[in-house]
Amino acid sequence: MSDLATQRDAFAAIISRPLPEGVTVRRTVLGGRPTLDLEPAGATGPARLLFFHGGSYALGSPDTHAGFTGELARRAGVRALSVDYRLAPEQPFPAAVEDGFAAYRDLLDSGTDPRNLVLAGDSAGGGLVLATLLQARDAGLPMPAAAVLFSPWTDLTVSGGSAVSKEGIDPIFTKAGIRDGADLYLGAADPAQPLASPVFADLTGLPPLLIQVGASELLLDDSVRLAGRAGADDVDVTLEVGARLTHVFQLDFATNPAADAALDRAARFLTAHL
Amino acid sequence: MSDLATQRDAFAAIISRPLPEGVTVRRTVLGGRPTLDLEPAGATGPARLLFFHGGSYALGSPDTHAGFTGELARRAGVRALSVDYRLAPEQPFPAAVEDGFAAYRDLLDSGTDPRNLVLAGDSAGGGLVLATLLQARDAGLPMPAAAVLFSPWTDLTVSGGSAVSKEGIDPIFTKAGIRDGADLYLGAADPAQPLASPVFADLTGLPPLLIQVGASELLLDDSVRLAGRAGADDVDVTLEVGARLTHVFQLDFATNPAADAALDRAARFLTAHL
Repeated sequence: MSDLATQRDAFAAIISRPLPEGVTVRRTVLGGRPTLDLEPAGATGPARLLFFHGGSYALGSPDTHAGFTGELARRAGVRALSVDYRLAPEQPFPAAVEDGFAAYRDLLDSGTDPRNLVLAGDSAGGGLVLATLLQARDAGLPMPAAAVLFSPWTDLTVSGGSAVSKEGIDPIFTKAGIRDGADLYLGAADPAQPLASPVFADLTGLPPLLIQVGASELLLDDSVRLAGRAGADDVDVTLEVGARLTHVFQLDFATNPAADAALDRAARFLTAHL
Repeated sequence: MSDLATQRDAFAAIISRPLPEGVTVRRTVLGGRPTLDLEPAGATGPARLLFFHGGSYALGSPDTHAGFTGELARRAGVRALSVDYRLAPEQPFPAAVEDGFAAYRDLLDSGTDPRNLVLAGDSAGGGLVLATLLQARDAGLPMPAAAVLFSPWTDLTVSGGSAVSKEGIDPIFTKAGIRDGADLYLGAADPAQPLASPVFADLTGLPPLLIQVGASELLLDDSVRLAGRAGADDVDVTLEVGARLTHVFQLDFATNPAADAALDRAARFLTAHL
C-alpha cells in the first residue's frame, strides 16, 4: 500500500493546476459522498456540471482535479460539482459506478432540472460518466442535456487496436499498465460488462456526446469505437481526434494552444446544449 | 442508357437547390475539365474552395449541386470551384480521380497558395476529395488547409457493419444498391485499392478533416472507420454523427435546423483553417 500512496502523491503532483481566478470552492455532499462545489464568478444560473475525475479508478480526487474542473466550469460559465467517488483497490468495482449514479440521482432529487445539467469527466472519469448515464437510463431517470468525455477509458478488456499500434508513441501508457489498472479496479468482475466497459454497451437514449482524444494515445480506439457505437445506437456524437496529442492533453491549457482550443470547444458544446 | 439518363434526371431534380442570393456563377476550366466558379458577394480574398459533387461517380454535376455548393461557399465566405469530373460508366475509375487531381494541381500551378485552399465534397465527392489528397501527397504536392466530407463514400467494398445494421433504417440506400454503384464505377478494378476506397489508405500527412454523417445511413461506418484510420495515422479529424439524420442531410438546409447547424459548423471549420 505504500507504493499506492506514492502513486497517488505523484499523480496529484502531475494533475494539480492552480484554481482559476474567480472560482469559489465549497465542500458539500452529493449522493452521500464528499463533493467539491466550484462556482465561477457570475455563474449564478441554474445550470450544473457534474464532473468525475480521472485516475484509473484508483488515483486522484476532486482536489487533484480542482484546477482543471474549475477551468472547464469557468469557460462554460457553469457551476461544477466534482464527486469524490470511492476508489479501488480499497473499494473496487462497482463502488465508483454506484457513487456516480447516487450523485446524479441526488442532483435530480434535489430539484435540478435535467435540461440544466451536463456531465463531464476525463479518462476513467469519462468512463464513469457513461456508466452513470447507462444506470440513469435503465432506472428510468431523465437524461442530462449533454456530456463531454476527455480521453475516456471505455474498454477495460483493453482490446482496441491502438492499445498495440500506439505503444511507444503514447508517452504515458503501456498496454500491460492499462491491464494492471483494470485488474486493480475490477478484481474478479467481468471487464466486458457495460458498466465497466461502456464501449460494449447499448447506448440508445444517451444525450449528445462530445469525445476528445489524442492521436498519440493507447486509448484512441476507446474513443473511436465509442463514437461508432453511439452512431450505431442513434446517439448524437462528436469525436475530435487531435494529431500528436496525448492522454487528457486538455490539462495543458494555458501552455498548449491546442489544449486551450479543445477546452473552449468543450465549454461551447456544454453551453450550447444547456 | 436511357435508364441511366432517367436516373440522372431524377437525381438532378432531387439534389437541385436554388442558387443563394448574391452568388455569381461563371463557367471556367480546371485541369482540363469544365468547372463552375461560384463567387459569393464579398468573397474577394484569395481563399478558394475546391468542391466535388456526389452521385456515386455516375450521377450529378456542378450544376445539380450549384445551390448546395453556393450555400456552403456563401456561409464560408469563400469562392468555390466545382469540377465536372468524368462520370461512370462512360468513363470509369480512375477517370474521376485523375480529374480531381488535375484540378487540384491546376489550382496550385496557377498560383493558389495551398494555405488559402480548402476542399469539400459530398458522398462520392467526399471519397474523391480523399483520393485527390492522397494523389497530391504522393506526388509531393503541398496539402490544402483543410477538407470537409459530407457523408463520404469511402469503402467501395461495402464492408462496414452499418451497411447491414442500418438497412431498413436508411431511407435511401440498400447494400445491394451501393454494390451496384461500386461495380458501375469500378468495372474490373479492385474496389479495395486506396484511390477507390480511401478508408483502407494510409492517411499520413493529410490536412485536418471534418466528417459529417447521419446515424441513419448505411454509410455511417464509412465515416467512423475513416475517422479511426485518420487517428491511427496521426491526422487531425473531427467526426460528427447526427442522430436520426440521413445521407447528406445538409442538403435540407433552410428547412431542417440540424442541416443548417451542420452546414454552419462546416463553414466555420473551413474558415478557421484558412
